[in-house]
Amino acid sequence: MSANEFDLESYLAYRKHLVDEYLKEHIHFPPEFARLKEAAEYAVFSGGKRIRPILCMASCEAVGGDIASVMPFACAIELIHTYSLIHDDLPAIDNDKLRRGKPTVHLVFGEAIAILAGDAILTESFRLASDISLWEDIYSHEALDAINLIAQKSGANGMAGGQSLDVLWEGKDADEQKIWQIYNGKTAALIEAAVLTGARLSGATAQEIDCLKLYAHNTGLAFQLKDDILNETGDAKKIGKSTGTDRARAKPTLIKALGIEECKKRLEELTQNALNAIQNFSASADPLRAIAKYLAQRES
Amino acid sequence: MSANEFDLESYLAYRKHLVDEYLKEHIHFPPEFARLKEAAEYAVFSGGKRIRPILCMASCEAVGGDIASVMPFACAIELIHTYSLIHDDLPAIDNDKLRRGKPTVHLVFGEAIAILAGDAILTESFRLASDISLWEDIYSHEALDAINLIAQKSGANGMAGGQSLDVLWEGKDADEQKIWQIYNGKTAALIEAAVLTGARLSGATAQEIDCLKLYAHNTGLAFQLKDDILNETGDAKKIGKSTGTDRARAKPTLIKALGIEECKKRLEELTQNALNAIQNFSASADPLRAIAKYLAQRES
Repeated sequence: MSANEFDLESYLAYRKHLVDEYLKEHIHFPPEFARLKEAAEYAVFSGGKRIRPILCMASCEAVGGDIASVMPFACAIELIHTYSLIHDDLPAIDNDKLRRGKPTVHLVFGEAIAILAGDAILTESFRLASDISLWEDIYSHEALDAINLIAQKSGANGMAGGQSLDVLWEGKDADEQKIWQIYNGKTAALIEAAVLTGARLSGATAQEIDCLKLYAHNTGLAFQLKDDILNETGDAKKIGKSTGTDRARAKPTLIKALGIEECKKRLEELTQNALNAIQNFSASADPLRAIAKYLAQRES
Repeated sequence: MSANEFDLESYLAYRKHLVDEYLKEHIHFPPEFARLKEAAEYAVFSGGKRIRPILCMASCEAVGGDIASVMPFACAIELIHTYSLIHDDLPAIDNDKLRRGKPTVHLVFGEAIAILAGDAILTESFRLASDISLWEDIYSHEALDAINLIAQKSGANGMAGGQSLDVLWEGKDADEQKIWQIYNGKTAALIEAAVLTGARLSGATAQEIDCLKLYAHNTGLAFQLKDDILNETGDAKKIGKSTGTDRARAKPTLIKALGIEECKKRLEELTQNALNAIQNFSASADPLRAIAKYLAQRES
């Protein structure tokens, strides 16, 4: 089956359903802390596309694994993504008012609860990933390896680090190299965690892991670049968040540095690099191929 | 040796030194994200007493364990405590200006970096605890059990949950039961995590764990009550943070509900409960005994 014949729409819808159901069943925000629970669930179940856990599952399948084994880790990564959106939307950071077509968490629940809900979701991510009762067919040391990788890629050396530069370079003239560093930290790192976790928990070979790492790196950078293109030229209704905000806040984007046309070219290159990285994989990697193309073409 | 003869001052100073050195050696905030690193290290190395990791070590020793085995977890708990202070001090939560005699993180580095530094420190906590290369004499499944416990006690069902109620009950009349629930979540839960982690990683029996849990629960509640008493009647110079702030913000404290004299009586009762819980332990529990007494008598 070629990537063109692959029915991505059904694939994404079904995988998103699996993630939603898994999160509903396994995350636990106790009723005694009702307002925190409400805020956390508002954010976790706000209709996200679940791209990161789906990439984790697709990577698992690409190397012949069973997705049941990776679900706790795939969903832990989605929780990390979710907490980062809550904190990034805060007035002190991006001051965003709209997310997935709904008011941001701090507008609905107040800033204090938004900060704490983010903290609680981040913590819940590691509680979920360390819940030994949820695993199927994996060893404790493999789970620890996955937890360690996820923490590395989402902390000071990855997502939080990138996000700090994104804030600090607002209103300044970041050069291209600096912007790639920011994209790499704030976006590509967690996507790499998703793809690598899926592969490493599924017995991938060292060579497969090298290829998937390259795939993830390019897909992650393309993802952020596309986000920035949509922020500049997209339809706010389709995207579900305000557009033009990067320009208004003088964010360090590649669009600001290189212009929109050059960015579209770079997006194509990154996507092609991602596809090339896994060209020797069998049809089992068709979902990964289709997702890379979709992410570059998406309108939301 | 009775608890009275035990030289607590030297014990605490040496244990604090061990924690400081361990953190210096093993936490990693990369230089590429210089400002985030600076903010995180400002918070982590700000002269905290390291009570939680010391309790973890003391609990380990009380059941005959080797503290080298628990260090990564003890220090992970200290990191969680550290991140919670940064976020609690934010304008949207407690709006505190002074911590350990120094300006709070957001005053020095700005709110955005303070939020992200808290996030990065929380994430670093789980990176540290899942770093298999640091362990001595423990099994992977025991480490996962410790990580899971720490996440449970610090997330929505513990510290973050309690903190959310602390915020929501500001300016309202919380009854005694509600205030105990808040103390339990925001303070006792993480102290329980510290004591239980130390015991569980050191081969404690089920009976020992029950006793230590009771010790930790009472010590944790006493710790918060003493904090509130110091906020009302203490010396700001000794404490290193502003006093009278609970009253000014109409915080849900037991002092507001019961008055200061009744609170002092309750503090004595809780401390006695903690000591009774471990009365059948040998002299190996003398550090735990001395710490419980010290926490009730401390002036900072």
